[in-house]
Amino acid sequence: MTSLDPAQIDPTLEKIRAALEGGRLEEAMQELARLRPADRAEAFSDLTDSDQASLLPRFPIPAAADLLTELEEDDAADAAETLSSDRLADVLDEMPPDDAADIIRDLSPDRAAEVLASMEDAEEVFPLLGHPDESAGGLMTTDYIALRRHTTAAQAIDFLRQTGPASTTPYYLYAVDRDRKLIGVVGLRDLVAAPPDATVETIMKRDVIRATTSTDQEEVARLMTRYNVGAVPVVDDQGVLKGVVTYEDVLDVLVKEATEDLYRLSNVSDADLTIHSPVHISVRRRLPWLLINLLTALFASWVISRFESTIARVAILAAFQSVVAGMGGNAATQTLAIMVRSIALGNVRLRDASGPLLRELATGLFNGIVVGVAAGLGLYLWKGNPWLGIILGLAIVGNLVVAGLVGAFVPLALKSVRLDPALASSVIVTTFTDCIGFALFLGLATVFLPRLG
Amino acid sequence: MTSLDPAQIDPTLEKIRAALEGGRLEEAMQELARLRPADRAEAFSDLTDSDQASLLPRFPIPAAADLLTELEEDDAADAAETLSSDRLADVLDEMPPDDAADIIRDLSPDRAAEVLASMEDAEEVFPLLGHPDESAGGLMTTDYIALRRHTTAAQAIDFLRQTGPASTTPYYLYAVDRDRKLIGVVGLRDLVAAPPDATVETIMKRDVIRATTSTDQEEVARLMTRYNVGAVPVVDDQGVLKGVVTYEDVLDVLVKEATEDLYRLSNVSDADLTIHSPVHISVRRRLPWLLINLLTALFASWVISRFESTIARVAILAAFQSVVAGMGGNAATQTLAIMVRSIALGNVRLRDASGPLLRELATGLFNGIVVGVAAGLGLYLWKGNPWLGIILGLAIVGNLVVAGLVGAFVPLALKSVRLDPALASSVIVTTFTDCIGFALFLGLATVFLPRLG
Repeated sequence: MTSLDPAQIDPTLEKIRAALEGGRLEEAMQELARLRPADRAEAFSDLTDSDQASLLPRFPIPAAADLLTELEEDDAADAAETLSSDRLADVLDEMPPDDAADIIRDLSPDRAAEVLASMEDAEEVFPLLGHPDESAGGLMTTDYIALRRHTTAAQAIDFLRQTGPASTTPYYLYAVDRDRKLIGVVGLRDLVAAPPDATVETIMKRDVIRATTSTDQEEVARLMTRYNVGAVPVVDDQGVLKGVVTYEDVLDVLVKEATEDLYRLSNVSDADLTIHSPVHISVRRRLPWLLINLLTALFASWVISRFESTIARVAILAAFQSVVAGMGGNAATQTLAIMVRSIALGNVRLRDASGPLLRELATGLFNGIVVGVAAGLGLYLWKGNPWLGIILGLAIVGNLVVAGLVGAFVPLALKSVRLDPALASSVIVTTFTDCIGFALFLGLATVFLPRLG
Repeated sequence: MTSLDPAQIDPTLEKIRAALEGGRLEEAMQELARLRPADRAEAFSDLTDSDQASLLPRFPIPAAADLLTELEEDDAADAAETLSSDRLADVLDEMPPDDAADIIRDLSPDRAAEVLASMEDAEEVFPLLGHPDESAGGLMTTDYIALRRHTTAAQAIDFLRQTGPASTTPYYLYAVDRDRKLIGVVGLRDLVAAPPDATVETIMKRDVIRATTSTDQEEVARLMTRYNVGAVPVVDDQGVLKGVVTYEDVLDVLVKEATEDLYRLSNVSDADLTIHSPVHISVRRRLPWLLINLLTALFASWVISRFESTIARVAILAAFQSVVAGMGGNAATQTLAIMVRSIALGNVRLRDASGPLLRELATGLFNGIVVGVAAGLGLYLWKGNPWLGIILGLAIVGNLVVAGLVGAFVPLALKSVRLDPALASSVIVTTFTDCIGFALFLGLATVFLPRLG
């Protein structure tokens, strides 16, 4: 009953498909109704577009609103397209304003205007539409409760009782002055525990963790994790309360940003790509990075080709040049991962970067010596030529030091010019470790050529 | 005031350090007291061990409890070591039981027994100690509010008023039967909105999203994100309520698990590693993976060495073998990243794996053709030999198909034997793409050797 294994919704999904094939729409609706909202949304999104289009109009307005709220943003936009503008307006009126705004942003301008004109609560959604998706303004909901400072706890609780349990930000109430400037926050728990005649002013906390509408969503997520608050109020430049971002929104942001870092380090530039993405989307999102990597690989080939005559004389060198480049790439990838994540979690200060750089240099040197000695000894035992082993070992030590320095420096440099440190870091860094690795190994081999014959 | 830029605490940190150098402990304490708890913990952890040890005993018990709660687990354990067992027991009594349990787990068995014996609330902490750190049991707190079904809303609110705003799980109350089995959940918001004489039974939701003590923490995080609940109650095998996991704990889990995936794909096996980790820790955690990679690199070298005589005759081949291996590695890394993340987010069903595998094959084939034609043409234009270009192109196509298949298959296979798909995936997969890349290119070159001269 509580497991998340998607297999759990499969039996119901099969019943729904069978009912749809037999044209028994009512039965399909009943099966869907038995699922929890989140599971219902998943089952719905697994149906074909035409099945979705024939079922959605049969949903009562509140159920359709729940469904669109739970669906992934793209799926919700597709589903919204199948509804008439009037019906869609009714459904959006029932949704949390931030989710409604997300759907309206994805409509064509004409359709959006038509739908907004038919909505009753358009004034709740309208202010949200001007903010970029990834800002606090784009993430916030306008569905929050604001109180004046002289309101008593009893009055506030009466007010909550009248408005019913509809608000999506139910656990914090915000105190505002006559200009709606944010002046404090009251936890619902504190409100309940307060004497009935205590005023908001006496129970509110004045030091409110807050964001402005333009604050980046990652920053909002960090505020929430750092200060352990379940909601962050959003104000404009004058300090006027505009909305609230809740932990639900931030959970999604954290997951998405982490995926983005991992993808970008792996040369995948679109965090929405999944293993279920259609082939033409996968190709379009991945091919450009492969072509960039091809260019850098050909540059590394050019470096090797400078040593063609050395390789022609000692062909076995070609077998070990890749060890030097590969070990450098591996070591650099380790440093990159740690640096990119440390930057993402706000743990690195640019002006204190010398410490990390020195530590990476030391780590590279030490790991390089161990790996270099192991590789050199191995090669000596295999091929019987001590000079081959010494050259391989030295080249590895050198390349691992380069890997540590470049792997730490490049993301910091990208960050300092306000680029995403995860983006392009791995292409740049592995180009360095490849080219320097090949040049070090084959250069040393050229110098010691008489000893290798 | 609201920015997270760590630079913001620096001026205070410098004042604290100056005060400590001058032996003015009281002044240092006053500066620390001006910071928010989370910022205070960060400033405290930036001090030297001896400064920490001289300041911590001066913290009043509740302030010390706040500090240990906010500190990272390792820092909290170190700080706890500097306190006497009696004082530590007093501090732990004031902490949320789950955070207290985390610290006790890190003490030596003797010290832990001594501290537990001195604690007043040992019975709240004791049941938590038996659960592994990464399970719902290890994450949960015992500090929650349970109600019986016939309690009225007014009685429940009176109870909350008496206990004060201390509970760390303030926004959900849980209904239990006489055996303390979980039977429902009441949101605080619903409780406040209910008529005063309504019983818990009439306002509670019976379908409670729950975990058992042994549920993995990632699964708890998924339950919370999927069903948008701010807390998940934890029951034992008999359905008896044992504790509650809150969104604060899960925010940390999500961030940590995402870091773990990214690190493991980058051959870093310890998610606690940061750019500030000391060199000996970095070396110990990263060197083993480099040595494993060295073994696989030497295996790839052995593959190349099988073609030594081919390379001796056409040395320029050595410059392009790495392009084939490298492009395969890049393409495989893309597939790995998407597959590992899809598995982590619960989007892949093992028995439906044929779809993703086929799509990766198609993506690999298509990307391979484009990259192969580009690389082959480039090489033909550069070196003037069409056969060299054809061989490079064909080898790239073949290796990118292998990359797609192996990159998708290996994490699925690891998952199916219950290993972490992120762990070891990249070593295994790049070993394949290296060896097959070299063998394909040099094998084709050997076949077409007469045309390359």
